[in-house]
Amino acid sequence: MSILIKNVILNGKRRDILIEGNKIEKIGKSLNLRADEKIDGKEQKAVLPGLINCHGHSAMTLFRGYADDLPLKEWLEKKIWPLEAKLNREDVYWGTKLACLEMIKTGTTCFNDMYWSEEASVEAAEEMGIRAKIGLVVLDFLPMGKRENIEKYWNIFKRKKFKTVTFSIAPHSIYTVSKESLVWAKNFAKKNNLLLHIHLSETEKEVKDCQKKYRLRPVEYLNKIGFLNQDCILAHSIWLSEKEIKILTQRRCNVVYNPCSNMKLASGIFPYKKIRKAGINICLGTDGPASNNNLDLFEEMKFGALLQKVKEKDPTVASASEIFEIATKNGAKALRINAGEIRVGKLADLILIDLNQVCLIPGHNLISDIVYSCSGTCVSDVIVNGKVLMRDRKVKGEGKIKREIAIRAKGYA
Amino acid sequence: MSILIKNVILNGKRRDILIEGNKIEKIGKSLNLRADEKIDGKEQKAVLPGLINCHGHSAMTLFRGYADDLPLKEWLEKKIWPLEAKLNREDVYWGTKLACLEMIKTGTTCFNDMYWSEEASVEAAEEMGIRAKIGLVVLDFLPMGKRENIEKYWNIFKRKKFKTVTFSIAPHSIYTVSKESLVWAKNFAKKNNLLLHIHLSETEKEVKDCQKKYRLRPVEYLNKIGFLNQDCILAHSIWLSEKEIKILTQRRCNVVYNPCSNMKLASGIFPYKKIRKAGINICLGTDGPASNNNLDLFEEMKFGALLQKVKEKDPTVASASEIFEIATKNGAKALRINAGEIRVGKLADLILIDLNQVCLIPGHNLISDIVYSCSGTCVSDVIVNGKVLMRDRKVKGEGKIKREIAIRAKGYA
Repeated sequence: MSILIKNVILNGKRRDILIEGNKIEKIGKSLNLRADEKIDGKEQKAVLPGLINCHGHSAMTLFRGYADDLPLKEWLEKKIWPLEAKLNREDVYWGTKLACLEMIKTGTTCFNDMYWSEEASVEAAEEMGIRAKIGLVVLDFLPMGKRENIEKYWNIFKRKKFKTVTFSIAPHSIYTVSKESLVWAKNFAKKNNLLLHIHLSETEKEVKDCQKKYRLRPVEYLNKIGFLNQDCILAHSIWLSEKEIKILTQRRCNVVYNPCSNMKLASGIFPYKKIRKAGINICLGTDGPASNNNLDLFEEMKFGALLQKVKEKDPTVASASEIFEIATKNGAKALRINAGEIRVGKLADLILIDLNQVCLIPGHNLISDIVYSCSGTCVSDVIVNGKVLMRDRKVKGEGKIKREIAIRAKGYA
Repeated sequence: MSILIKNVILNGKRRDILIEGNKIEKIGKSLNLRADEKIDGKEQKAVLPGLINCHGHSAMTLFRGYADDLPLKEWLEKKIWPLEAKLNREDVYWGTKLACLEMIKTGTTCFNDMYWSEEASVEAAEEMGIRAKIGLVVLDFLPMGKRENIEKYWNIFKRKKFKTVTFSIAPHSIYTVSKESLVWAKNFAKKNNLLLHIHLSETEKEVKDCQKKYRLRPVEYLNKIGFLNQDCILAHSIWLSEKEIKILTQRRCNVVYNPCSNMKLASGIFPYKKIRKAGINICLGTDGPASNNNLDLFEEMKFGALLQKVKEKDPTVASASEIFEIATKNGAKALRINAGEIRVGKLADLILIDLNQVCLIPGHNLISDIVYSCSGTCVSDVIVNGKVLMRDRKVKGEGKIKREIAIRAKGYA
């Protein structure tokens, strides 16, 4: 299978791009080559690497708009958890399909997920064709989050061939997973060459509770039990001391900035400037749609940049190009995928931008327009793993997903 | 001229809406009435009042993405001002047309503007059919900003019949307009029954400079010279003392919250909670597209809500319904237009929402989805002053505006 994208704007110049299999094979001027499929960028289209969502809970699209503007405890205990208790495997499957649809329609080509009923998420992502790293969730107080269950899942998954899905081990957090399970998770991940995905230092309360229990801050605690290394994807990472930042640098961990969720839940402000200065790999995430409430990384980039500028009282902090890199290259680095850039040999995970959209006019600077002016609806076409998932804003199966969600929403809400 | 909107969702119920002339004439179930034009909401459409943008500089769409991530002084002196010096009347006309197009396409039905070449902005807004309050800009150091010029303009404008355009007097700020001119502007506005539109306390520097010069903070200074009253629309209003908030309450001023611009330029955080508690009328604005960089009030609502939650460390602050009211009813109140709600007798300034958009699915709560999940691209149809300006996302003249801007951008940039 091959795709030839003709006359597309790449870094300001008209170029042709040949995709062979799942990789970018050639980039040049007026490539006269045969291909199974052709896309013409003549109608003012630019090409960019697909965006990478490094932290989320996809199936929670089901709860979009169900509960907002509440104190965290009430939100979780009275709204989210009772609803989650009503979900079945099929709900998770369709909720994840809706999330994949939303991400594809807003230019995300890969996401890093953490939710239960993992086999439902795997099936949804594979069918939709989007690249996904599905976390096998470790959670002491739920039967499905126990080690035996993870081992069972992994024994099934590791034998199967997936097109776009890979896996991580996802201990939920230090306050929901015991020390023993955290150590087990880390060793299990290492043994099976998997990444680790965990929530960390999202709220001040988490830090205080940890200090009370262990006389250590969360990063110090994880460091002490030998959890931290370059396989770690640490979501949120807001409440960090200088010492903790130093540890994360030494351990070469990856951290995920989730500006919308952090603002909406009033968790705090990610210390972007300090973390960046420390040389830690920062990626971007939307978190779940119940605390955002969408999965549009275009919007997330704008929130991410603007929040840091006002925090630091400095408009030069978190520039458009920096934030764009965080949402592409850095995400690829954290998730260990050969993507995040449009270059020969990279995975063909890319998006076309419709330059005729008002948000891109006059068009002085594409990256500025992408980060500060546009929402994800400026994306016209999406290719993942060498396969066209969206063409002229049409995604296969969109109508069916919406109809299924409408039926299911009546059941659980 | 009449329009009948059939089967549209209004406050959760299917309703028909009859528009006669420029007003909402009837709202009911299955209205069997004749109308010149019919719109069917059957395909899952909800109706909402159009959004009202209470502070901006429309023509600056021309500079979208031209200069970002710079210190304020460098941004203005090296980038924006030199570019502005190159603009002619026609540029302002087309820049404003582009702004009107963008606002219509993102559900804004009325805007409050401040830019020079006012007659160009008036012409653009009238042609596009959007409701606009065009500020006659008082600015001491520019010939066109002098009182004689304002008087001349007003003498021309007040004799003309406009469909959707009205006027304000817009002294730029306390640091660019002399005390004498401010007093003159206030009296001129009063005499001619016009509103006053001014930038106020946008930066900490503005406050410090004012204190140095007058030994008063900006609101105290304006109060002392008798400028403040219920005709005032005060843009930004970030750096306010308790005493100043008290004065604004007593004088019944209106303030405009511009979250994106305030964050992007690192101006500071609007004291929403205090101002709301004081009972001051808060409206919402995008500011100019050079410091935002778009005119999408949907996005602005989300920024507005989320910024306050994280500032106050409280997720219950600035709820979706509060913010939606600020962007509709409160704006109408400030600008003194009989709009901002879907009710019989109100101006027919309304928007239809395409409920099939992914951002609105499952659809647990329309206002939550509008504020937290959607961008303005979920708007399918726009009616202003009883006239359809957008139908199924198509706006008359869109192509020509884009082509003209493309040509002009080569000249000034």
